[in-house]
Amino acid sequence: MKAVLIAALVSLVGTLFGTPMFIRYLVRKGYGQFIRDDGPTAHHTKRGTPTMGGAVIVAAALLGYAAAHVFSVTPPTVSGLLVLFLMTGLGLVGFLDDFIKISKQRSLGLRSGQKLLGQTLVAVLFAVLALRFENSSFRTPASTHISFVRDLPLDLAFAGPVLGLLLFILWANIIVAGTSNGVNLTDGLDGLATGASVMVFAAYVLIGIWQFNQNCQWNPSSKCYEVRDPHDIALVAACVMGACFGFLWWNAAPAKIFMGDTGSLALGGALAGLAIVSRTELLVIILGGLFVAITLSVIIQVASFKTTGKRVFRMAPLQHHFELLGWQEVTIVIRFWIIAGLCVALGLGLFYAEWMVGA
Amino acid sequence: MKAVLIAALVSLVGTLFGTPMFIRYLVRKGYGQFIRDDGPTAHHTKRGTPTMGGAVIVAAALLGYAAAHVFSVTPPTVSGLLVLFLMTGLGLVGFLDDFIKISKQRSLGLRSGQKLLGQTLVAVLFAVLALRFENSSFRTPASTHISFVRDLPLDLAFAGPVLGLLLFILWANIIVAGTSNGVNLTDGLDGLATGASVMVFAAYVLIGIWQFNQNCQWNPSSKCYEVRDPHDIALVAACVMGACFGFLWWNAAPAKIFMGDTGSLALGGALAGLAIVSRTELLVIILGGLFVAITLSVIIQVASFKTTGKRVFRMAPLQHHFELLGWQEVTIVIRFWIIAGLCVALGLGLFYAEWMVGA
Repeated sequence: MKAVLIAALVSLVGTLFGTPMFIRYLVRKGYGQFIRDDGPTAHHTKRGTPTMGGAVIVAAALLGYAAAHVFSVTPPTVSGLLVLFLMTGLGLVGFLDDFIKISKQRSLGLRSGQKLLGQTLVAVLFAVLALRFENSSFRTPASTHISFVRDLPLDLAFAGPVLGLLLFILWANIIVAGTSNGVNLTDGLDGLATGASVMVFAAYVLIGIWQFNQNCQWNPSSKCYEVRDPHDIALVAACVMGACFGFLWWNAAPAKIFMGDTGSLALGGALAGLAIVSRTELLVIILGGLFVAITLSVIIQVASFKTTGKRVFRMAPLQHHFELLGWQEVTIVIRFWIIAGLCVALGLGLFYAEWMVGA
Repeated sequence: MKAVLIAALVSLVGTLFGTPMFIRYLVRKGYGQFIRDDGPTAHHTKRGTPTMGGAVIVAAALLGYAAAHVFSVTPPTVSGLLVLFLMTGLGLVGFLDDFIKISKQRSLGLRSGQKLLGQTLVAVLFAVLALRFENSSFRTPASTHISFVRDLPLDLAFAGPVLGLLLFILWANIIVAGTSNGVNLTDGLDGLATGASVMVFAAYVLIGIWQFNQNCQWNPSSKCYEVRDPHDIALVAACVMGACFGFLWWNAAPAKIFMGDTGSLALGGALAGLAIVSRTELLVIILGGLFVAITLSVIIQVASFKTTGKRVFRMAPLQHHFELLGWQEVTIVIRFWIIAGLCVALGLGLFYAEWMVGA
């Protein structure tokens, strides 16, 4: 537990003090955000704000993880390292995207095929490795079972070892694509994605702690959790939560820096990784309900326009719809945070209720 | 646990839907906030925004408490009712203050002597009653011990039964004055006090649940908590938290309504009551660190001006200092929330650490 607190604290201090240094560096280099011309026109004033702030989040989270393990004199775990790998790998893809945007001064960075290729490579590597590294109790970081609040009976390995592995890789890619696009689309208003992320990762701190308390390896019961490294799940989540919290200081309106694709892909990757290794793959849909709703708004908008020629929202993603309805940016941010908080509360409530009712 | 969720949910829905109805009512009646002329001039645009929104918070919290007990078919507890009494009583004093301000269209409501008298009456009644109602395990809602994360050895009853009671009444009044002034001074920027309150009361939900799990009455150990009604502490805290969360929807910048003294005194009362019955009287200084810092800024400002003739801050309370430094209102709010969150995390960390280390 003390290690979890240290992880959160070091990561938080990391972004709190690292971000202004990074901002100064970016400003000196003349790197500012290039705002898309198809966004609300009010956003054109945001041109020039530095981006790629996600790099500080990733660096601070890695630092927090290292510090916590050094301080508590415990080795890192495979689950923890894999989640950090997924976060950092996707963050790197996002970084390339951001960097090309800035250095070429164009709104679009990597071609979508290149971006998808990068994401897929990282996710496939994560998925393959997550099924290995059996510990002495025969537990691996991930399992081929689809999971809600724990592994469900549905096992992708039903298809045989090879096809089962392929199905799991596909499933992991779907989760990664879902979370990283969700956070990515939620980004765009000052502090919105950052604040929502704080709450979702806080949920994973609690889930990790609870899975640690009620773990089958040292606390066997009919309700125990078959998770390989629950304490490290809480620790990684605490790192990301702390890093986002400190980053919010600078990302709050008026944002001095944006997280960019570097940040949104990294946070999406961390979220997907935590969901997979904590066996809460479907629960993440509820915990990250705000990301899901915003993603759905884009899907609905596109589908409606393609089929009926009409738009459902004035603009998608959803936050821009409310901007065009005349809500102030900060009102949307705080109200969306409230919704994110409610989704997190509902998700944790379901997680706890399943434990209470028992297996 | 289910009752705690119901309490939070009903209270939240209560303010989420009750607040706009109350706003319409106040606007129809022509009741708007009269902004003090000595605040930052930018605040003069806030004139006309309805206030007394705390009335909805109090009503929704009471409704949530009733609903949770009806639904779970459990009787209310003395601790819960006493905290609600302290909240409602102080809210009523605040309401009289707000109402006089509005109906007389002057910035100052009750005379400070009248206000203090009202607060004192409520707090004295609370303190006297909180030492009665011994349950079958000889536990009373409050104790004459000073408490940090549990009762400390220092017992005010050392002074004998009569003087001990008087000392406890004085102590309870100090706590009530501290928390209610703290929340009151923190109010003033859109959403600031409301959002900070959500976090502090969330802490008390966790504290109540933990004290329930580790209670001496049914889980005796060297680390158990001697608290009379821990589950109802979590429940009352959940009511207030939920009510604040829903109110924040409307109180977020640009605020459609202010909580007024009705709200700040009521929330201060609820906080003081929870601290006393959960035996965390000194811990509340850390949990409510933001309120404390803002109160200290006023004390420092006044003391410095009276002794040296110089002002330490451009304006007190602290949030106006940053306004005059040119920070945007929303930046101050979100950064102060981050500070409030850190204080809550620190307080909960200490609470948990004491349990870990054990008695």
